[in-house]
Amino acid sequence: MTVMDKAALSAFLRDEFPQVAGDFHIEAVTDHALTLRLRVGSQHLRPGGTVSGPAMFGLADVAVYLAILARIGPQALAVTTSCAIDFMRKPKAGVDLICEARILKLGRLLAVGDALLFSEGGAAPVARASVTYAIPRE
Amino acid sequence: MTVMDKAALSAFLRDEFPQVAGDFHIEAVTDHALTLRLRVGSQHLRPGGTVSGPAMFGLADVAVYLAILARIGPQALAVTTSCAIDFMRKPKAGVDLICEARILKLGRLLAVGDALLFSEGGAAPVARASVTYAIPRE
Amino acid sequence: MTVMDKAALSAFLRDEFPQVAGDFHIEAVTDHALTLRLRVGSQHLRPGGTVSGPAMFGLADVAVYLAILARIGPQALAVTTSCAIDFMRKPKAGVDLICEARILKLGRLLAVGDALLFSEGGAAPVARASVTYAIPRE
Amino acid sequence: MTVMDKAALSAFLRDEFPQVAGDFHIEAVTDHALTLRLRVGSQHLRPGGTVSGPAMFGLADVAVYLAILARIGPQALAVTTSCAIDFMRKPKAGVDLICEARILKLGRLLAVGDALLFSEGGAAPVARASVTYAIPRE
Repeated sequence: MTVMDKAALSAFLRDEFPQVAGDFHIEAVTDHALTLRLRVGSQHLRPGGTVSGPAMFGLADVAVYLAILARIGPQALAVTTSCAIDFMRKPKAGVDLICEARILKLGRLLAVGDALLFSEGGAAPVARASVTYAIPRE
Repeated sequence: MTVMDKAALSAFLRDEFPQVAGDFHIEAVTDHALTLRLRVGSQHLRPGGTVSGPAMFGLADVAVYLAILARIGPQALAVTTSCAIDFMRKPKAGVDLICEARILKLGRLLAVGDALLFSEGGAAPVARASVTYAIPRE
Repeated sequence: MTVMDKAALSAFLRDEFPQVAGDFHIEAVTDHALTLRLRVGSQHLRPGGTVSGPAMFGLADVAVYLAILARIGPQALAVTTSCAIDFMRKPKAGVDLICEARILKLGRLLAVGDALLFSEGGAAPVARASVTYAIPRE
Repeated sequence: MTVMDKAALSAFLRDEFPQVAGDFHIEAVTDHALTLRLRVGSQHLRPGGTVSGPAMFGLADVAVYLAILARIGPQALAVTTSCAIDFMRKPKAGVDLICEARILKLGRLLAVGDALLFSEGGAAPVARASVTYAIPRE
């Protein structure tokens, strides 16, 4: 069950991460998954028009983070402890990236999620990531 | 499209990996996925009856490997180049492990797959792995 | 500073992991590192005489685990939460594997170590792994 | 043996990655290692003054990439295929990050390196990463 919906997560992102909130748009939130769009801008690109590795990493990281907050609420200061990411295909130039994140474990101390990244309109994923967060105890 | 079915993959496993073939049973093969059972025996256990980390690693590795072979055929000498695995829950004692593997990329040089491992009858995954293979050129 | 020396760690391994203790030999223990030998036997081999992936995974896992226990003592029920491993070269046939593990972080909740694996007498590593453990609270 | 020195790598970075070249400074290059500084600016920060995950990922990625180019020369279009990164400590506010990268494998198809990241002046690493690159064939 989620405790934050799309509007609440969007407001949280805007308030807490003003530097990057404008890059992202939450498309959908369900109990176990969240879809996040990266509005690709020039700051995300590498020569040749492809999206940079750090931009893809950041998209996966934020998507899994928001999927966790949807479940545990905004009070949590979850911290990324590890990420394993595979870059599988070159993203298409000139289109946004869409990330589908799901939660695999939501424990007392650790949360684990994974993410598939697609160029908008593409059927094959451009990247895959698993991300782990430490959840602080009150 | 697959080029090896369940019977062909089972025969391949028996011929090429006689040391471990008896530990595994191929449950299902589709175009993008493969389900593999680890028949848990005493050699896979740690104190307390839980399945060992190496046994779970081996299950994910073999499942993704067979899912690749299903697509490219038995001539390939694919070699594991990397694996990132998350252990999320303690496997149940006394039951087999079921691994669902899918192929995310099948390139000329590299293949990438991921795997979810479940205790038989359990709804939540006990582990998650992504595995990369180098595919030798003729 | 270590709280368990080579003899104490060897005894712990023998008592707690009788199934696999005979496979391993602790070569050296220092404040931040531990060297562990895998006595390669037929149960660790794949066709062609190479050491299996699960055997290499297990070596890295046990080496980092013992390096943590050297620092925090035998009371801990540390559990592996994740491992990222790269297989870089084929191990030499007929020789043991030597693993050099070091601790990078020893926190209240998580410990992180990494490991380099060599065929005995070889200069280039055959594999590299990073391993994370959750440390239970009393 | 290196085929590009510090000056050649710095010029390459400036020519090929003008968007980010100003963020980095190559401190040292040896046969197997490279030290790279991230000049931390406001674009790398998160609330509270800590360096963002994507900025740390990017530092590790660029450092290992340059260490590979030092060995194989500027003609190569190496592409990152995977990265496993552990975030272990919060970087200190107000200081640069220093990354020490080393090459563990330089094969015909794949190169593997790892990286330790430190807050300048700090003794304990803030992050650890392993990065794999595919090396294109002529």
